[in-house]
Amino acid sequence: MQSIDQLIEGSLKGEKLSTSRLISLVERGNKHAPYVLEKIFPHSGEAYYIGVTGPPGAGKSTAVDRLIARLCKNNFSVGVIAVDPSSPFTGGALLGDRVRMHVKHDKMDVFIRSMGSDRVMGGLSRTTKEASRILDASGKQVIIVETVGVGQSELDIAEATDTVIVILTPESGDSIQIMKAGLMEIADIFVVNKADRPGAKDISLSIQGMLDRSLRKRDWTPPIFLTTASLNKGIDELYEGIWSHSRYLQQDSMLEKRRRTQFKLELRNRIESEFSHILWQDIIEEKNIDNLVQEIWARKIDPQNAARRIMGELIEELPGWLQRGG
Amino acid sequence: MQSIDQLIEGSLKGEKLSTSRLISLVERGNKHAPYVLEKIFPHSGEAYYIGVTGPPGAGKSTAVDRLIARLCKNNFSVGVIAVDPSSPFTGGALLGDRVRMHVKHDKMDVFIRSMGSDRVMGGLSRTTKEASRILDASGKQVIIVETVGVGQSELDIAEATDTVIVILTPESGDSIQIMKAGLMEIADIFVVNKADRPGAKDISLSIQGMLDRSLRKRDWTPPIFLTTASLNKGIDELYEGIWSHSRYLQQDSMLEKRRRTQFKLELRNRIESEFSHILWQDIIEEKNIDNLVQEIWARKIDPQNAARRIMGELIEELPGWLQRGG
Repeated sequence: MQSIDQLIEGSLKGEKLSTSRLISLVERGNKHAPYVLEKIFPHSGEAYYIGVTGPPGAGKSTAVDRLIARLCKNNFSVGVIAVDPSSPFTGGALLGDRVRMHVKHDKMDVFIRSMGSDRVMGGLSRTTKEASRILDASGKQVIIVETVGVGQSELDIAEATDTVIVILTPESGDSIQIMKAGLMEIADIFVVNKADRPGAKDISLSIQGMLDRSLRKRDWTPPIFLTTASLNKGIDELYEGIWSHSRYLQQDSMLEKRRRTQFKLELRNRIESEFSHILWQDIIEEKNIDNLVQEIWARKIDPQNAARRIMGELIEELPGWLQRGG
Repeated sequence: MQSIDQLIEGSLKGEKLSTSRLISLVERGNKHAPYVLEKIFPHSGEAYYIGVTGPPGAGKSTAVDRLIARLCKNNFSVGVIAVDPSSPFTGGALLGDRVRMHVKHDKMDVFIRSMGSDRVMGGLSRTTKEASRILDASGKQVIIVETVGVGQSELDIAEATDTVIVILTPESGDSIQIMKAGLMEIADIFVVNKADRPGAKDISLSIQGMLDRSLRKRDWTPPIFLTTASLNKGIDELYEGIWSHSRYLQQDSMLEKRRRTQFKLELRNRIESEFSHILWQDIIEEKNIDNLVQEIWARKIDPQNAARRIMGELIEELPGWLQRGG
C-alpha cells in the first residue's frame, strides 16, 4: 500500500493508477481528502475546463467521445469526469454512461472517470470540482465535465467550467421547454446533435430565435453547431468553436474573472455547508425540533414561526459572542 | 384597500379574491406574510394533497384539468398550485402552463394559481407549501400541486403532498433515464399518458419491471395507469387509484407519520435558511471572503481549507457561547 504522499507524487507525475486512487479517496470523503486537495491544488489551474450538458438521450457521451478523439489528434491530454446523478434516494448504481466509450482510447492520453451520487460523499458538485482539479494537477490539458442536464446539475457545470456546451436533439421539445430547463442561460455553445434526423433545422432556428429575443446582454453570441456524433459529423466545427470561445475569454481577463467568481461561489457554498453541519451537530438539539414538530402538528404554531422562534433564541446570544471576536 | 385581517377573514370564508391576494402577498415575501401564515395555519390540515409531476411535455396540465373535472363531479372543491420553475437565471415569465385549462371551471369550485420562480421570494418549495396551506385553510378539500419533474422540484413535491403521481409518456425514454431522474422512488402512482401512442405498453412494462426489481421495501405497490388525458380516457381509473392510495395511508396512522416527517423536514430547512441568512448578514464579512478568494486565486490555499479556516475561527468562539445558554 502506497502512502498518501506517494500517491500524490505519482499523480502529479501523471500516473493513472495514483490519480485514480486519489479520486476514489476524495469521492469517499476519506479523512486524508483535505490533505490531498491541499497538496494538489497549487498544481492545478493550467487546464482548460469544458462542460457538456443536455437532456437525457441527447447523445452527450458519444459527442464527448468524438471530442476526446479530436482533442487527442491535436495532442491534447484529456481528463473526463462523467457525472451521473442517478437517484437521490436509493443511490442505486446504474449503467448509463458507464456503458460507453466506443472510441479507442488506448493510444491517447485520456483519463475517464464516471461518478454517481451513490459513491460520492459530500455532493456531486463538490466532488466533481475536486476530481477535476486532481486531473488538472496530474497534467491533463483539457478537462471535460459531462453531466445530464436536469435541475441543479446544469447550474453546477456552469460554476465549474470555462466553456459550457449544451447538447440538444431535434426531439428536445419546443423552445419553451429548453428555457424552462434553464439551459439557455448557461450555454456558451449549442449543439444540435442527431442532426440527420428530421427537425434539426427547426430546433436550431428556435434556439437562434430565443437568443435573438433574449434580454440578457451578451458580448459572446453562442454559436449553434449541427452534429451527428455517431457518424463523427460536425465535430471539427465544434472543436473550433470551443477554442474560439476560449480565445474570446482571453480578452479583458474574462477567463480570470469567470474563475474568480466561481471560486467565490464555491467558497461560500463550502462555508455554508460546514456551518450547517455545526448547526445540527452542536447547536440545535434534536429534541427541541421534535417538540416543535409536535406543536406544529397540533397547529399551535406554524413552521415559519417555529423556525423563527428557534432562531430568535440563538440570535439573542449572538451579539455578545460576536463582540468577543467571533 | 382591505386590511390584512379582512383578507384573512375573507379567505377563511372561501372568498377567492381574498385568497388570491393572500397568496400574492406570500409570494412577494411581504412583511405581513408571517402574520398571515400564523393566522391561516391553524385552519389548515383538512385537505388532501396530491402532487403531479413528470418530464416536460408529458401532458401534466391536461391530466390535471381532467382530474379537476372528475373531482368536481364528485363535489370536491379543488385548489391547484401549478409550479413553473422556468429559468433560475433570468426569471423570465413564460407562458407554458399558464396557457391551459381547456376545461370549463366556471361551475366548479376550483382555484388555480400558477407560480414561477420569477415572482417568488424565498424559494418555490417554501412558497408552494404556504400557498397550498392558504387554499387548504380557505376550505378547498383537495389541493393539487403540479410541477415539472426536473431535478429538485420532484423532491419538493414528495415533501409537500400525500399522494404523488408521476406522469410519463411513451416517449419518456428508457427505464434507466426514469430512474436517473429520481422519479421512481417518489411515485405513489404512475401514469403513462398519451397512451394512444405507440410504446405505451412498453414503458408500462418497463416501469413494472423496475418496481419488481427495486430494492426498496414497499407495502404499497404503485399502480400504473394508462391515460389519454386529451380524450379524457383513463381518468376515472386514476381518480379511483388516488383514493385507493389515500385509504391505504389511513392505516396505521401512515398519513400522520408522512405529514409529521414533512413538517420536520420543512422546519429543518427553514432553520437552515434563516441561519444561513444570519451567517452572511451578521457574521462573515464580505471582505474576508474576497481576501480568501485572492489567496485561492494565487494558489496559496485551496477552497476546502479556506472554508475550514473561516469555520475554525468561528468555532473557537462557539463553545463558550453555547455554555452561556445558546
